[in-house]
Amino acid sequence: MNERVCRWGILGGAGIARKNWQAIRHSGNGRLVAVASRSQEKAAAFIDECQGQVAHDPVPEAIGGYAALLARPDIDAVYIPLPTGLRKEWVLAAAAAGKHVLCEKPCGTDAGEVREITEACARAGVQFMDGVMFMHNDRLAALRQELDAGTIGTIRRIATQFSFLAPKEFFTDNIRLDPGLEPLGSLGDLGWYNARIILWALGYEMPVSVTARMIREHHGVPVSLSAELAFGGGVTASLYCSFENEHQQWVNLSGTGGHIQMSDFVLPFHGPELAFEIEQAHFNVEGCHFHMERHSRRVATREYSDSHATAQETKLFRKFGELVLGGTPDPHWPEISLKTQLVLDACLRSAREGCREVVL
Amino acid sequence: MNERVCRWGILGGAGIARKNWQAIRHSGNGRLVAVASRSQEKAAAFIDECQGQVAHDPVPEAIGGYAALLARPDIDAVYIPLPTGLRKEWVLAAAAAGKHVLCEKPCGTDAGEVREITEACARAGVQFMDGVMFMHNDRLAALRQELDAGTIGTIRRIATQFSFLAPKEFFTDNIRLDPGLEPLGSLGDLGWYNARIILWALGYEMPVSVTARMIREHHGVPVSLSAELAFGGGVTASLYCSFENEHQQWVNLSGTGGHIQMSDFVLPFHGPELAFEIEQAHFNVEGCHFHMERHSRRVATREYSDSHATAQETKLFRKFGELVLGGTPDPHWPEISLKTQLVLDACLRSAREGCREVVL
Repeated sequence: MNERVCRWGILGGAGIARKNWQAIRHSGNGRLVAVASRSQEKAAAFIDECQGQVAHDPVPEAIGGYAALLARPDIDAVYIPLPTGLRKEWVLAAAAAGKHVLCEKPCGTDAGEVREITEACARAGVQFMDGVMFMHNDRLAALRQELDAGTIGTIRRIATQFSFLAPKEFFTDNIRLDPGLEPLGSLGDLGWYNARIILWALGYEMPVSVTARMIREHHGVPVSLSAELAFGGGVTASLYCSFENEHQQWVNLSGTGGHIQMSDFVLPFHGPELAFEIEQAHFNVEGCHFHMERHSRRVATREYSDSHATAQETKLFRKFGELVLGGTPDPHWPEISLKTQLVLDACLRSAREGCREVVL
Repeated sequence: MNERVCRWGILGGAGIARKNWQAIRHSGNGRLVAVASRSQEKAAAFIDECQGQVAHDPVPEAIGGYAALLARPDIDAVYIPLPTGLRKEWVLAAAAAGKHVLCEKPCGTDAGEVREITEACARAGVQFMDGVMFMHNDRLAALRQELDAGTIGTIRRIATQFSFLAPKEFFTDNIRLDPGLEPLGSLGDLGWYNARIILWALGYEMPVSVTARMIREHHGVPVSLSAELAFGGGVTASLYCSFENEHQQWVNLSGTGGHIQMSDFVLPFHGPELAFEIEQAHFNVEGCHFHMERHSRRVATREYSDSHATAQETKLFRKFGELVLGGTPDPHWPEISLKTQLVLDACLRSAREGCREVVL
């Protein structure tokens, strides 16, 4: 290869890494050099599973132990999908080894950890970014254009829900409710996206106060949680994340001139386009006659959700590769990770203190 | 007329009465006998305005003063769209005069008033019902069928918003923010519908606790308010009502097996049908491939929203007429008015006490 590429390593073989393996492969500026697991055998098995269908590609190396991967000089960036409870240790180690870090969410068990992580990356001069894929699809850019154009006026209210119905085994076998590995439970796994889309929509303004309710917990870990965020100027947002509801992932952005509904903001529906709906209603009263008129406009971007070439995860890895190859870390990305975590922290504190209002 | 009909009187000439005038005319079992206003001139002007287009109908009588209308023996039922601050006085007077009462919402300034009102109607043996039109359209019956059939499994979460963007004058000239006449502001005017659809969906189970936020108030009257209702078994609901957001009136019912979205639950969109969407998503993972599949089904009832013959307000007055002519008041209707008001009271208390959790 003549062109410079971002040389990737993956720490751990989480399910999500299977998807992102393909994303690296299709990023256009990345190459997967090695995969580390706790043992070389596990890493090799993971590689076999993912590599099977693309035998023409160079096979990444299977490495036993994360430290051994970080020690390699032929890796520029690492993707870290390890459990949340282990992230800080390995992000710090990666930064110390001079590796750029793409980190799954939640990036830490609390904002203190995320601050430590992002400061370490800044000191080491490496890029830090969290793995929120939707940030990188073309739809979000189209949505930003609509918001900037004033299509729905000034945003006054955001409502968002991200949920899925976990099977019974989830409550015993899945690490997503393990107090040590995933202490934020559904709030970290799902609520991270809710908080992020809210912050994104409001230009990363932080809420001034938060109230939240622990609807259900499992050994102290949120299973279902709802929160209300108050921003300046009477803007508010409601989020709900849950492991005990059928799959939903919607956001409603409501302004003085209309509202926008996006029904698949996290994981786009299968199909050739990603879309959102702009809705306006006009209530006309003429004497004794009342008319409620609806005006809908669908905005769609052409990016086949299930094509690796156009998938949002591919764009995420491509973007990260550009930053790595560009040579100058962009502080925006660690900053929004920290802000997202600060919002989750406030939610969790309020929820644990019986809905008490937490002022930020 | 040979058939027995429900003979109606209207107290006051509020805007909404213009619509309900037509509803009485088309109810099939009702006749408008008289309209009272503070002066006979005002009543006559109102009659002229509404009667204009239907000159072939018998013209109702214009009466000066509400008491004079209640004293008439040729009136069975009254529709009371007077301001909330005046309702108790005139509902009690109507009940004392043996008139059945169809009362606009909110039915009182607090649950104490609504209890007094509904108890007085019960003692007088007259029907009491609030003016929530959507309760009477065919769509709600179709929705009940879907819920009973388990289409979306067990409801776990409800989110609902009702808002409109009030013009500047609204904050000075409109009685809907007058502390004396409409002390509940947007909570009474809009939140009543949010609370009602939540209670309806959950079979009128009451929340166990409520937290709410006064987002904006005007002389102590809610302009924008959000609330979170917690029911037994981890079921929760979020409501948001506002006079400072573009028109929206949606409810999302979210269950273990899917969710239902209704975008016009209060004032149906103009058109030949009333509809809601049943949504299910399936997330399929096959090796490195992820597929998010959407299954949508639209359920629609054939009831032209703007035809007086099929409009939900016509069905409301027809239903009320049937109860009056049936001779036996149905206690369900006053009961759900009281429950709705109890929920609003809890919301307002929490909001006024800085989001403090209010246990019911």
